[in-house]
Amino acid sequence: MVEQPPDEPNLDVIFKALAHPTRRELIEQMAAEPKSVSELADPHDVSLAAISKHLHVLEDAGLIEVEEDGRIRRCYLDATPLSAAFGWLTRYRVLWDDRLDALANHLENQDNDDRPDSS
Amino acid sequence: MVEQPPDEPNLDVIFKALAHPTRRELIEQMAAEPKSVSELADPHDVSLAAISKHLHVLEDAGLIEVEEDGRIRRCYLDATPLSAAFGWLTRYRVLWDDRLDALANHLENQDNDDRPDSS
Repeated sequence: MVEQPPDEPNLDVIFKALAHPTRRELIEQMAAEPKSVSELADPHDVSLAAISKHLHVLEDAGLIEVEEDGRIRRCYLDATPLSAAFGWLTRYRVLWDDRLDALANHLENQDNDDRPDSS
Repeated sequence: MVEQPPDEPNLDVIFKALAHPTRRELIEQMAAEPKSVSELADPHDVSLAAISKHLHVLEDAGLIEVEEDGRIRRCYLDATPLSAAFGWLTRYRVLWDDRLDALANHLENQDNDDRPDSS
């Protein structure tokens, strides 16, 4: 049973895919150019099976396409689903901008109060 | 043992917090104004215990502050951690922009090919 239409970005699986440091690093590794599974696994201190599991989570989120080239499995990053996550976050941008501005003002006032009176 | 310095945004817990539709809805409910736990639970067809669990996940991510007001627990959204998630995603923006531009060009060319020749 498919609950989500295939072309609808599924924010649950996209955000879940981003919720692990290894998966974020795998995305970064593929950003410049496609990589084989063993190239992707190389810098990580975990088993190839663990890397495969992470790659499956990224594949479920539509973030990678895998191409079989003989015995090599080459992974291509498709960053399109990230735009849906970005779009969702954008709605709250005004809220964190306000909060960060208030914090900056508070720190500036504190700094001014701490400074010896130069008058 | 604390692995992450307290002020460092923890992308794992922030993205995990966003990976559930109920938690994204709770964020939306608090965006306009603070809400009590029962106001937050009201539109959801799940138990108060389930909502409390979701609120704890949001609290762990630093996305809400809870204020006790007599018997009322009032929840305030702090959107600041979302800026860290946004910042991480921004690094890949050029990649999905390129992909979406290529797709738009492809569709436009297809559209032109399908159109009867007007010359």
